[in-house]
Amino acid sequence: MRILILNGPNLNLLGRREPEIYGQDSMETLLGRLRAAYPDVELEYAQSNSEGVLIDHLQEAGYRCDGIVFNAGAYTHTSVALHDAIKAIPAPVVEIHISNVHTREAFRRVSMISPACCGVICGFGLDSYRLGIEALRARLQK
Amino acid sequence: MRILILNGPNLNLLGRREPEIYGQDSMETLLGRLRAAYPDVELEYAQSNSEGVLIDHLQEAGYRCDGIVFNAGAYTHTSVALHDAIKAIPAPVVEIHISNVHTREAFRRVSMISPACCGVICGFGLDSYRLGIEALRARLQK
Amino acid sequence: MRILILNGPNLNLLGRREPEIYGQDSMETLLGRLRAAYPDVELEYAQSNSEGVLIDHLQEAGYRCDGIVFNAGAYTHTSVALHDAIKAIPAPVVEIHISNVHTREAFRRVSMISPACCGVICGFGLDSYRLGIEALRARLQK
Amino acid sequence: MRILILNGPNLNLLGRREPEIYGQDSMETLLGRLRAAYPDVELEYAQSNSEGVLIDHLQEAGYRCDGIVFNAGAYTHTSVALHDAIKAIPAPVVEIHISNVHTREAFRRVSMISPACCGVICGFGLDSYRLGIEALRARLQK
Amino acid sequence: MRILILNGPNLNLLGRREPEIYGQDSMETLLGRLRAAYPDVELEYAQSNSEGVLIDHLQEAGYRCDGIVFNAGAYTHTSVALHDAIKAIPAPVVEIHISNVHTREAFRRVSMISPACCGVICGFGLDSYRLGIEALRARLQK
Amino acid sequence: MRILILNGPNLNLLGRREPEIYGQDSMETLLGRLRAAYPDVELEYAQSNSEGVLIDHLQEAGYRCDGIVFNAGAYTHTSVALHDAIKAIPAPVVEIHISNVHTREAFRRVSMISPACCGVICGFGLDSYRLGIEALRARLQK
Amino acid sequence: MRILILNGPNLNLLGRREPEIYGQDSMETLLGRLRAAYPDVELEYAQSNSEGVLIDHLQEAGYRCDGIVFNAGAYTHTSVALHDAIKAIPAPVVEIHISNVHTREAFRRVSMISPACCGVICGFGLDSYRLGIEALRARLQK
Amino acid sequence: MRILILNGPNLNLLGRREPEIYGQDSMETLLGRLRAAYPDVELEYAQSNSEGVLIDHLQEAGYRCDGIVFNAGAYTHTSVALHDAIKAIPAPVVEIHISNVHTREAFRRVSMISPACCGVICGFGLDSYRLGIEALRARLQK
Amino acid sequence: MRILILNGPNLNLLGRREPEIYGQDSMETLLGRLRAAYPDVELEYAQSNSEGVLIDHLQEAGYRCDGIVFNAGAYTHTSVALHDAIKAIPAPVVEIHISNVHTREAFRRVSMISPACCGVICGFGLDSYRLGIEALRARLQK
Amino acid sequence: MRILILNGPNLNLLGRREPEIYGQDSMETLLGRLRAAYPDVELEYAQSNSEGVLIDHLQEAGYRCDGIVFNAGAYTHTSVALHDAIKAIPAPVVEIHISNVHTREAFRRVSMISPACCGVICGFGLDSYRLGIEALRARLQK
Amino acid sequence: MRILILNGPNLNLLGRREPEIYGQDSMETLLGRLRAAYPDVELEYAQSNSEGVLIDHLQEAGYRCDGIVFNAGAYTHTSVALHDAIKAIPAPVVEIHISNVHTREAFRRVSMISPACCGVICGFGLDSYRLGIEALRARLQK
Amino acid sequence: MRILILNGPNLNLLGRREPEIYGQDSMETLLGRLRAAYPDVELEYAQSNSEGVLIDHLQEAGYRCDGIVFNAGAYTHTSVALHDAIKAIPAPVVEIHISNVHTREAFRRVSMISPACCGVICGFGLDSYRLGIEALRARLQK
Repeated sequence: MRILILNGPNLNLLGRREPEIYGQDSMETLLGRLRAAYPDVELEYAQSNSEGVLIDHLQEAGYRCDGIVFNAGAYTHTSVALHDAIKAIPAPVVEIHISNVHTREAFRRVSMISPACCGVICGFGLDSYRLGIEALRARLQK
Repeated sequence: MRILILNGPNLNLLGRREPEIYGQDSMETLLGRLRAAYPDVELEYAQSNSEGVLIDHLQEAGYRCDGIVFNAGAYTHTSVALHDAIKAIPAPVVEIHISNVHTREAFRRVSMISPACCGVICGFGLDSYRLGIEALRARLQK
Repeated sequence: MRILILNGPNLNLLGRREPEIYGQDSMETLLGRLRAAYPDVELEYAQSNSEGVLIDHLQEAGYRCDGIVFNAGAYTHTSVALHDAIKAIPAPVVEIHISNVHTREAFRRVSMISPACCGVICGFGLDSYRLGIEALRARLQK
Repeated sequence: MRILILNGPNLNLLGRREPEIYGQDSMETLLGRLRAAYPDVELEYAQSNSEGVLIDHLQEAGYRCDGIVFNAGAYTHTSVALHDAIKAIPAPVVEIHISNVHTREAFRRVSMISPACCGVICGFGLDSYRLGIEALRARLQK
Repeated sequence: MRILILNGPNLNLLGRREPEIYGQDSMETLLGRLRAAYPDVELEYAQSNSEGVLIDHLQEAGYRCDGIVFNAGAYTHTSVALHDAIKAIPAPVVEIHISNVHTREAFRRVSMISPACCGVICGFGLDSYRLGIEALRARLQK
Repeated sequence: MRILILNGPNLNLLGRREPEIYGQDSMETLLGRLRAAYPDVELEYAQSNSEGVLIDHLQEAGYRCDGIVFNAGAYTHTSVALHDAIKAIPAPVVEIHISNVHTREAFRRVSMISPACCGVICGFGLDSYRLGIEALRARLQK
Repeated sequence: MRILILNGPNLNLLGRREPEIYGQDSMETLLGRLRAAYPDVELEYAQSNSEGVLIDHLQEAGYRCDGIVFNAGAYTHTSVALHDAIKAIPAPVVEIHISNVHTREAFRRVSMISPACCGVICGFGLDSYRLGIEALRARLQK
Repeated sequence: MRILILNGPNLNLLGRREPEIYGQDSMETLLGRLRAAYPDVELEYAQSNSEGVLIDHLQEAGYRCDGIVFNAGAYTHTSVALHDAIKAIPAPVVEIHISNVHTREAFRRVSMISPACCGVICGFGLDSYRLGIEALRARLQK
Repeated sequence: MRILILNGPNLNLLGRREPEIYGQDSMETLLGRLRAAYPDVELEYAQSNSEGVLIDHLQEAGYRCDGIVFNAGAYTHTSVALHDAIKAIPAPVVEIHISNVHTREAFRRVSMISPACCGVICGFGLDSYRLGIEALRARLQK
Repeated sequence: MRILILNGPNLNLLGRREPEIYGQDSMETLLGRLRAAYPDVELEYAQSNSEGVLIDHLQEAGYRCDGIVFNAGAYTHTSVALHDAIKAIPAPVVEIHISNVHTREAFRRVSMISPACCGVICGFGLDSYRLGIEALRARLQK
Repeated sequence: MRILILNGPNLNLLGRREPEIYGQDSMETLLGRLRAAYPDVELEYAQSNSEGVLIDHLQEAGYRCDGIVFNAGAYTHTSVALHDAIKAIPAPVVEIHISNVHTREAFRRVSMISPACCGVICGFGLDSYRLGIEALRARLQK
Repeated sequence: MRILILNGPNLNLLGRREPEIYGQDSMETLLGRLRAAYPDVELEYAQSNSEGVLIDHLQEAGYRCDGIVFNAGAYTHTSVALHDAIKAIPAPVVEIHISNVHTREAFRRVSMISPACCGVICGFGLDSYRLGIEALRARLQK
């Protein structure tokens, strides 16, 4: 089972950026923990600050992987193009967020990509990534 | 570890109502599966069609349980009173939905309770309940 | 042929409350007249001020009666939960209103339940109930 | 008792246009059935695709008939001029629709003429016309 | 002179819930103080988390008491049914709030019941209840 | 100097329709008074309930008359086509209204044609027509 | 017959400010012309840049003059206080504007004072003032 | 204890202006009654039709008095500047209204100053002023 | 292959009306050019200022022609009835505009008929008509 | 004559992605057909999923080509930057869409780039590209 | 070079009002520093809490000074009259704000006067005044 | 002191693109002038048409420079991702615009990044860049 964790803009700063919202762990630490916890899953990882590169990743992985855990960051709220990319690929995509976006600015309460994803998970800190894997694994095992 | 699964209006019809949206399993079947999967969790269950009774449940369980997995059903989109009840209790509440509400009518895309919950999970069918327990368990174990 | 007439909040005050809008007859007088006029229809009646109890009535009657004439009163304008209950049952539901809601406050012009009902009748005073029965009878006789 | 059935734009195509929404009977068939069912009512009929001609009909019949059953079709949603014509005449006007407009596009949920009519009936197929006559007859007999 | 103090959802938690907003006194303590301060007023008290039960209370007390001091809590912002119940009864109703709702979330700035009440008092902590009694007493003494 | 007075829908009922809003004089009486008062102006008159016929009148008179006093009635609030017709002709058009539209329903406060007219006069009863002639005469005499 | 012409903010710059919109004549020139044209009318004049002083003028003249021709300038679009002042006085007030406000910025299309005035005249340059007097004189002579 | 009663635009007409809304008593009569009822309070009074002068009063009294009972009249609905002035001073300000603003035009339902005041009282006629003093006195005595 | 070119309100003035927007050629000149360029297409032409007559044309040609090139002019932005007429006929309809409506007033950016047409072409001057024929011809040849 | 066909995000998947909306031909097939059909036009082609790269292409080709046929895909609805790039270059740009965007989600009905383009063509499948070339060729030949 | 610094409502409290937002320096201190830093500029200063007086200042200085640095305070967000005054004068006006208004309440993000000013500077504390002078000086020296 | 001047999309065309809005100088000329004027500041410069590359620049320079003068061009109005990048870095960012965005299209009046910047400067042509440096220098010298 192959799953891509895909991170959008500014998530390369994880552990360094606004730790009171995003926590202090880096993605590296997290990926190590996840690989240990899910030895049956081949976990890939990619990050980009560019909407276009994220579309490239979705298109490439969308025909090769079994599922995608996608934290689109700020593009969540504005990107019709990511919505279309998710719609265009066969692999199921889970939208996740580290923080509970509903407790922040009003513009973070709208997601352009939710209608294209199979489900949404938000608010559980870095554990949102693990829950995304859990959700995909259960879905794929059916 | 004691967790309440609380279901809102019309969820007593699960398995009988619009199975193409909500699936064919009943809550009883699901609860059996969950208790087997999480023997360390004492799972309670309650359902009501009444907003007031749901508030009663939240107030009562909110001081007695370690967490609540809450599918508020249609009240999700209109109830300030449930928002206030969740805010008023110490137990963390996870908002869950069976269907991906973002692919349905526009009025289902707004949740009045999300800002009061610790996190949101939607779109994974009945597996959303299990993911809610997963999320609470990880949070409580920290 | 069995039809439930279901009344929502404050309609127990009929004949007593704002008679210039709702008329001076009580539901009892009306039910007598309707049973005399439609001897082939078994007319049941229920009323509640509680949204939850109205959902209970819809769920119970929705699998047992041939149709429901529903005056949801003020819940018409706010209740997604009643919309869902109507959608969840096999019996056809006719939405009725005593007054012409379109000549009153703006918030009374929006109905959350119309899209779930088979049709809407409003503005004919207590005769709206009789027209609801007429509509259901014609539909059922087809 | 003299009642005008007045039909707005595209309703001359009845039986021919989108039969899954509007049914397969033509107005002629329907008028025959209605005249047979209500021998005490002198039923007149008119149709026009032109807003101005509809106003002419309302003005003329509004001082001569006892009531009007009006399906304004698409002008329902945009015409202040029909609203004014209905307000300007003594005969009561019942607004009717064949389909349940609330299950269709959002712009069909707003009616400019409802506040000027005595009541509204929608969603019962061609039976909506008969219910309109029923409603007027009951009102006129009082 | 008989006055009902009626409390809506979550106000049974007073003194326990978010004390930085709602204060630390319970309703019991407050009622004692108010009865001592207004010996000429027969003070009744009721609370419910259910919209339907609140309507029952308004209907019952509305024909028996001289006035009602009503803190509708979260239902203030959403309930057309409470608006209708207040309109339907002869007793004057004063809308009160403990906190200044205008300094909180935007959805708390809209009250569905204000147009049906004789007046509104908000922002004075538990003293809002006393001011409600003051207002009713002055009105009744005229 | 040749001026067309052009009246829109339902203004043929003047003197007969809602006299508390529109007064009791007919257009014939008014035209007689205006011709007597302005012997130097050749006053023409036309009325139609049809938007299309009003456009025909504007196009025809717009190249032949010196000015147009236009009461577009209900089409004022909805007609882009009348806006375009006014823009397309060389004769200046004065928009007038008998009643003060700003004291009536909200949808009467928006005029689609004002930006195409040279000026607007409303609220002076039938005297609005005379003021329209006054305005055009002054403008033409410059 | 005594009529006050009252001018709001920036209208003291008439003849000097944006002449392509407001023309090149000053108020002095205009007043001379108007007094010559209407010898039976005692014309008073006042101007202020202050909303408060305009209210003072309305209150004072509103009980002493037979009518007021009021160009509220920019306060037209924002002032509830001027609305209230006009409502509070017995003298009829005609709202006028020099330019056709409907051809300018969107925020100039809304008038807060129109519902309180007896009528509105706009777009005729300085002739709008004369038409205001015409309108008041006709109204007062009835 | 020193309290300023501050009145905004048009409230100098009290007793003379629209008595069916504002009552027939003048401020003088009321002040006499209030001074008799509250001998321990030094009551000052000021009124202005000018937003700027009201700000001057708030700034001056805000550092000298113990509280302010403020009826901002029509400026309530539009003035950010009064909001800022209230925020800028140490004395608590109670917003009051004579009428129940929620039963009037929609634009009167929005208050720009409520978030800056400690509380709001509206709808009790002139008794709203007394209730404002009651509220401040209770607050100051704590 | 038979194609109707149908023109809406004010397009009879083509070549005469606002030439800086609509160009200086008349429809006659254009039709001659188009018939020469497309000898295999039987081009019909109709124009009306009346919404009702345009519906008549659509209904009549919609069952007889192979396609319709429709410039609905100002009715584009307001007419639900034209939308319905296009939906009701089997012939494909191409919506065209001479000017780029998106560079003009905001109300011209909304088209009520686009969802009922098979495609839209705008902004190419009179060449938009030719492109409409091109589009229909290619579609019909498939 | 040199024309660039420029495609935005996800259009590299043409023929593979949602064929019921976008058809089964790839861009390569289409380009071949177009080059054969228009031997006098030098057709260039570029595609990118990145908004920034699309701007680069517009800037580069905008000073070198005679025209651009631009399918901006999902960026159509959100990109002010593409609007600005089109405005900044001398070459005329035709906006095209494969599907009729007006029959899809509401957010696809708004185009940020239309006001900067010379015209818009949508809904004709891959033939929209050919029509774009037709339109540019006609424009350039004038 | 003569420049007026003009301050709007509540800015006379500078150094005393909400120092965490507006800083602790008074205008006097600031003016001293600015006069020292820009000996070539004749700096005038005026402040008023009254919109009308601010208009007077703009009109007077607008024909006499070379530029105006204007902090309109709360009137920024509501005043069409100040917009008009700025438009009416020849001197360039720079809009400045001490705080970054975009981090505060939503109603502070809209400026009515920006479109009339030559530029806007906000968020630099008292240094915003100096930057306004810098901007005007550079502009005047060109 | 090290400051980065960062330019967004289409600003590489400066001096070539719409010179009536953006002026005729290129960035090179400007940078030369700025380096001469501020010898104590190490000025860096970067530009990109890509949102993602701009985020990269902000992240890199945000931990290395003392401040950033940022003209985000069209991304100003749409980019949540740039907002987040600015929030995520320690260096203060000044938002600048060459033109006065408030005199242009409505969509240019909203800035997504202002709440994340320390201040905003717009409307002063290329001098806006110099003012941005002035602002940062003053802030850093404190």
